[in-house]
Amino acid sequence: MNTFEQYESEVRGYCRNFPAIFSSAKGAWMTDADGRRYLDFFCGAGVLNYGHNPDRIKQALLGYLMRDGITHTLDMYSEAKERFIDQFNEVILKPRGLHYKFQFPGPTGTNAVEAALKLARKVTGREQVVGFTNAFHGMTLGALAVTGNGFKRAGAGVPLSHTASLPFDGFMGPESDTLDYFEMMLNDDGSGLDLPAAVIIETVQAEGGVNVASVAWLQRLREITARHGIVLIVDDIQVGCGRTGKFFSFEEAGIVPDIVTLSKSLSGYGLPLALVLIKPELDQWAPGEHNGTFRGHCPAFVTATAALSLWKDDQLERAVFAKQAIIEKRLAHIATIAGAEATVRGRGMIQGIEFADPSLAGKVSAACFERGLIVETAGIDDQVLKLLPSLTIEDSELKLGLDIIEDSVRALVKAEPRELRSAA
Amino acid sequence: MNTFEQYESEVRGYCRNFPAIFSSAKGAWMTDADGRRYLDFFCGAGVLNYGHNPDRIKQALLGYLMRDGITHTLDMYSEAKERFIDQFNEVILKPRGLHYKFQFPGPTGTNAVEAALKLARKVTGREQVVGFTNAFHGMTLGALAVTGNGFKRAGAGVPLSHTASLPFDGFMGPESDTLDYFEMMLNDDGSGLDLPAAVIIETVQAEGGVNVASVAWLQRLREITARHGIVLIVDDIQVGCGRTGKFFSFEEAGIVPDIVTLSKSLSGYGLPLALVLIKPELDQWAPGEHNGTFRGHCPAFVTATAALSLWKDDQLERAVFAKQAIIEKRLAHIATIAGAEATVRGRGMIQGIEFADPSLAGKVSAACFERGLIVETAGIDDQVLKLLPSLTIEDSELKLGLDIIEDSVRALVKAEPRELRSAA
Amino acid sequence: MNTFEQYESEVRGYCRNFPAIFSSAKGAWMTDADGRRYLDFFCGAGVLNYGHNPDRIKQALLGYLMRDGITHTLDMYSEAKERFIDQFNEVILKPRGLHYKFQFPGPTGTNAVEAALKLARKVTGREQVVGFTNAFHGMTLGALAVTGNGFKRAGAGVPLSHTASLPFDGFMGPESDTLDYFEMMLNDDGSGLDLPAAVIIETVQAEGGVNVASVAWLQRLREITARHGIVLIVDDIQVGCGRTGKFFSFEEAGIVPDIVTLSKSLSGYGLPLALVLIKPELDQWAPGEHNGTFRGHCPAFVTATAALSLWKDDQLERAVFAKQAIIEKRLAHIATIAGAEATVRGRGMIQGIEFADPSLAGKVSAACFERGLIVETAGIDDQVLKLLPSLTIEDSELKLGLDIIEDSVRALVKAEPRELRSAA
Amino acid sequence: MNTFEQYESEVRGYCRNFPAIFSSAKGAWMTDADGRRYLDFFCGAGVLNYGHNPDRIKQALLGYLMRDGITHTLDMYSEAKERFIDQFNEVILKPRGLHYKFQFPGPTGTNAVEAALKLARKVTGREQVVGFTNAFHGMTLGALAVTGNGFKRAGAGVPLSHTASLPFDGFMGPESDTLDYFEMMLNDDGSGLDLPAAVIIETVQAEGGVNVASVAWLQRLREITARHGIVLIVDDIQVGCGRTGKFFSFEEAGIVPDIVTLSKSLSGYGLPLALVLIKPELDQWAPGEHNGTFRGHCPAFVTATAALSLWKDDQLERAVFAKQAIIEKRLAHIATIAGAEATVRGRGMIQGIEFADPSLAGKVSAACFERGLIVETAGIDDQVLKLLPSLTIEDSELKLGLDIIEDSVRALVKAEPRELRSAA
Repeated sequence: MNTFEQYESEVRGYCRNFPAIFSSAKGAWMTDADGRRYLDFFCGAGVLNYGHNPDRIKQALLGYLMRDGITHTLDMYSEAKERFIDQFNEVILKPRGLHYKFQFPGPTGTNAVEAALKLARKVTGREQVVGFTNAFHGMTLGALAVTGNGFKRAGAGVPLSHTASLPFDGFMGPESDTLDYFEMMLNDDGSGLDLPAAVIIETVQAEGGVNVASVAWLQRLREITARHGIVLIVDDIQVGCGRTGKFFSFEEAGIVPDIVTLSKSLSGYGLPLALVLIKPELDQWAPGEHNGTFRGHCPAFVTATAALSLWKDDQLERAVFAKQAIIEKRLAHIATIAGAEATVRGRGMIQGIEFADPSLAGKVSAACFERGLIVETAGIDDQVLKLLPSLTIEDSELKLGLDIIEDSVRALVKAEPRELRSAA
Repeated sequence: MNTFEQYESEVRGYCRNFPAIFSSAKGAWMTDADGRRYLDFFCGAGVLNYGHNPDRIKQALLGYLMRDGITHTLDMYSEAKERFIDQFNEVILKPRGLHYKFQFPGPTGTNAVEAALKLARKVTGREQVVGFTNAFHGMTLGALAVTGNGFKRAGAGVPLSHTASLPFDGFMGPESDTLDYFEMMLNDDGSGLDLPAAVIIETVQAEGGVNVASVAWLQRLREITARHGIVLIVDDIQVGCGRTGKFFSFEEAGIVPDIVTLSKSLSGYGLPLALVLIKPELDQWAPGEHNGTFRGHCPAFVTATAALSLWKDDQLERAVFAKQAIIEKRLAHIATIAGAEATVRGRGMIQGIEFADPSLAGKVSAACFERGLIVETAGIDDQVLKLLPSLTIEDSELKLGLDIIEDSVRALVKAEPRELRSAA
Repeated sequence: MNTFEQYESEVRGYCRNFPAIFSSAKGAWMTDADGRRYLDFFCGAGVLNYGHNPDRIKQALLGYLMRDGITHTLDMYSEAKERFIDQFNEVILKPRGLHYKFQFPGPTGTNAVEAALKLARKVTGREQVVGFTNAFHGMTLGALAVTGNGFKRAGAGVPLSHTASLPFDGFMGPESDTLDYFEMMLNDDGSGLDLPAAVIIETVQAEGGVNVASVAWLQRLREITARHGIVLIVDDIQVGCGRTGKFFSFEEAGIVPDIVTLSKSLSGYGLPLALVLIKPELDQWAPGEHNGTFRGHCPAFVTATAALSLWKDDQLERAVFAKQAIIEKRLAHIATIAGAEATVRGRGMIQGIEFADPSLAGKVSAACFERGLIVETAGIDDQVLKLLPSLTIEDSELKLGLDIIEDSVRALVKAEPRELRSAA
Repeated sequence: MNTFEQYESEVRGYCRNFPAIFSSAKGAWMTDADGRRYLDFFCGAGVLNYGHNPDRIKQALLGYLMRDGITHTLDMYSEAKERFIDQFNEVILKPRGLHYKFQFPGPTGTNAVEAALKLARKVTGREQVVGFTNAFHGMTLGALAVTGNGFKRAGAGVPLSHTASLPFDGFMGPESDTLDYFEMMLNDDGSGLDLPAAVIIETVQAEGGVNVASVAWLQRLREITARHGIVLIVDDIQVGCGRTGKFFSFEEAGIVPDIVTLSKSLSGYGLPLALVLIKPELDQWAPGEHNGTFRGHCPAFVTATAALSLWKDDQLERAVFAKQAIIEKRLAHIATIAGAEATVRGRGMIQGIEFADPSLAGKVSAACFERGLIVETAGIDDQVLKLLPSLTIEDSELKLGLDIIEDSVRALVKAEPRELRSAA
């Protein structure tokens, strides 16, 4: 670890919880430099929905590189981009009756969010954007201003402006519909909430602690934003690309956002790629008004195109729902071991378990790592154990990982039974 | 082009000037879907300093992919990252007596700039950052606030705050040392310029029109910032990695910045990668205070490591200076054809020619494209023809490209002689 | 009106509703240039709690002017200021067990608010300030940012930053305690609400529509802010100086704010004067850090000192409560005339009646003006008839004014009965 | 002093330099509680251009108060306001061929500035405003953002945004025309200076150290702003109302600003009053868009109207120029005593002397106070002794004051000769 501890900035984070030096990976498994294998329930924070280095996509990538397919084109045209757009239209948008234009910003999620916010502000002529409690949209100043995490916000070094934070579904408890509050603020011109250009939302807040917005709440949010002429941006960077079962996470609610941001699993192989989908009537960009060097990262177009072939039928979707059932059942059981107050929540193959004692999630994660399973925590106090296995994981691997979690919880409960069952 | 015109956002830019659909590329050449070949004097805006798909780097990449080297690790440790850090230390930093810590932000230039600005603000506890006229640092809100271009600034949709723009070297004409102004503003506590956390500068403004800061000016800037406790950030994203001859563009001035940002040609193969180099005493990040999904993009570490082997001796550096001489000589000649007012400027292998008639640069670029050469324009009015050939281009290719430029200028001067020789 | 219509800016407002040219005034009566008399239930928006030109105060003022007492001293010492401070301590602070330091900002409410916000930000080192829905704190940029009115906010011409607007007591309906929301935002570090420097509140929102914060709600707000180290600022500019019965409006709740702003009726004679009361431990100003020309407006100190003699016993307080009973009883009756949905609310001698049809308040105000009574509307839609008679009004005058209101409502109901009883 | 030291906030400033408790005043003289008399060369920072309590104005005020003229009307019409507008038109605007509409904001300078900035932003739809180095426009957030003083800016507690500070005339030394810089920033769309809504300027910076903008510079500023559609605001709060000889300070340059702010000496008697003069085509306010309680402070209209009678002929103007000559001659002499590096500057009856040793100005001020003369310092380091006697001061009084200054300088030079003649 010498190289890293001596030379890499103190900002490094995940490596502190999973202190191995990784060398190779395949499917649901990662291997470190000492040859030790780890089952992966983390998937690079949602980047590897199809597992590590899936062969079909790998072959497409190798073929492209070997024939000296062009690698980098900025936003000039390329065959690789053309095929991706055509395929995305054919496989994803048309079957769902969706019509969007494609903007390729810099190849990271935060850049997609910045582009979406700019466009919404331009189209509406307004400056204010509404985000939600415990949202996570990125680290650049525009995206950070709609991110809830106080520690990360403070890192800005400047006040974060032109945004307001409203309560996400469930923030005020199960009885309260938090959109009542938003609607009253909108309806009262004395509320001090300047009419927003946009609302940006994750249908399932992943970093925020696996908080799930209900179908009814999302539908009401779509209705309110439409009525007030507010652009609705769904940030599907972490829970799009099939994480919740359907390709887009908002499909279950039957809503159509005005703008959608995608990244993470979009390339299907861990290569950086981002996409902003824009309703045609909102595509009011002037040429070059937003740019970025790596907009034309062709190897990622190639892998993304290959990944889309997984969506030509509903096999993957059905597999996700089947595995969701396995996970939910087992987590419910684990919750009973951890104590009555532990709660399970999630959609599709993003599932979390929140313990009464917030520190337990971290202890379980550490115990799992010792047992060869990588699973991270989420939420403002890292109080939620977040399961994010690849969508293509084998059932046996899934069960193995769940066994490890159960074992870990059991061992911890045995060691310190009282502490775990009732929070401080 | 149907797919692009119908489905890609109006924001697309370069493709409008170079309307071909590119398919493959090798060395200094790009090939479109119809098999037409183009000589590349653009290099993806500085991403391809070593040319397209250089074999040595390609082999390293293919080997890594074929053995299922891990692709994506967030900021967990990987062998690929370890090798890159070790190699960068060995080949670049140590021989130059430099000591920096490595931060890998999201893999784009703008993300590196955002990280650098955040850190400078945190370390100093100040909010104001100084940028320069005609600077270009990126499109996300923090980086855009230190970018000069009015059109791109307006795209923010919100006012850009916590920054001030000061005149770059030469902005007030050759007689005026623009740092006089900066220094007087700093020395007078009534100046209204809040003491800045940082100054961010490109030693050669590439997008801004190939504006070159002199050695003396850079040295004075380093001295002023040091005296006032201001963090000096050199944004070497476009003109680092050997573009000006030395690996870092600031080496010629003998200065040591507090923070350096790198991206574009860092990976050596067009793969997204970015790096923030931080003086150890400034590495005051808390763990996870700035993050991003694609910080651990291992294929790019692999190609970047392979690219560094080009820097083990001074061959490349000497080659750059030799080609610089060829380019400068020829551009001086072309300037005489274009008219007395045309001026040539640049450092190393970034060179520009500014015409008396601002529109001529675009016309020359278009005429070159017709003749099979890709060369872009720069500057706020696109008034500068900017040459950015790969550092590894063959002399014969270089001459071919310069011939095409000369031919194009000659043809345009012949067609509309008066217009070109005296500006409107 | 020629002079005004031709030369005074379009920004003029109240004169459009009360189009008379006023000449003189005494007690509860104003007289226009044509000799017409108007009973005043408006009191210059709360400036004239002791009526127009009260003789006792007038004599003190004339005496001071005639002996050439110094008029203007900036913040140099003057006998007039000394006497005011001593008297305010003696008559107001000491009997209430309060300990505050005195800051005299520029002589307007908005300047007092700006000073208070600056100080709270300095003392805490934080930037965010929380205001409430339908709050009104002033028109300069700092105060406007905590004002709810969307029309006035838009007048800023720049986005209003570093503030958040939270729901005032009752904003979400009678069942909901809106401080639940504030407390959850504070307790969750992922809420996106940066920990505020201060909360600023009017205990009764006058401009906002006579919205009354309950005693329990104010007590809970004091408890929450104390627990989180947030400065509590009570803006008592419009409802302090006895408007609610006690000298300070927060006395009824038994809370002690950290900072109190006063202006309007403070001078007791309509002369501009403002005061910021600061808990001694928060008085961390550096000399001259906030200044203003008319901080030392001695005639206003003289009248303010004279006015304080009214507070040496509880006569005025008791008179206010007695008149409050008269007003409330009559308004309840008028509400029954106006229709079942009309509601009455207020504290002390600020009382309002909100009609089912929002436009009725304006019609009643106009009808009253025709009948010789000046009474204004408030609330975001001017939906509330706001009664603000002087505290020293005679009972007979009070009844006369209430008769006029009742007559006006009766006449309007008769003319358009259906419209008034049920809102659109 | 007990009351003040114990109870008045630490923010108090001038009283620390002039520690007397003032009781009465007349003409050029102030008297403290012990009966000691002080000659006034400070005039309340420019409020008392006509001296203390001038009889003619006093009689008008007393008459108005005694007949119970209405004191406070918000922005309702009053006879007092009507007479003021008519008189100001008749005596000031018409003879100068000027056409402005009248806005009465809150009665302080900073409120006038805030109103002017809002209106300029509204009319142009832009957000950026340009101020100048060492400018002083007020303490509320909008005005503070165009104020240069770093200490006062830091008092904001939030970053000051939407403004840029440019070099005032002479800031870069006598050879440099600082408007070259402004014009180059405006002409280059890549300059990073967003096109401003307005430029705000004091023709003579009083607080900033008696910095005088030349006629040619002001004319060029007017020309540049007109050409670029930028609103030119002249803040004449401290040096208008005859301080430089003409009623407006910009008359000498023959320019017509788009907006003019007045306050301080406008009421002529030390009563708070402020005025924004607006070119009719810019009067695009909506009714009530900017308001404030003390807009209709009638006693101040009365005294202001009385003061205007002094401007019916050119007597006052000629007297100012005559006294200017006396002051300049004597200051030039004093400068030779203080040492070769002392410089004298000013216009009309605002004159300053800057010493080589910055601390000398404060020492001279203190020595003068001991000798019974009140004269303040100005400039960012309080390095300038600023003379601001009333315009109506007797020649003998003027000479007495100048004698005291000369004596004080002489005594100090004798006591510490070396220190004073050469700066540290």
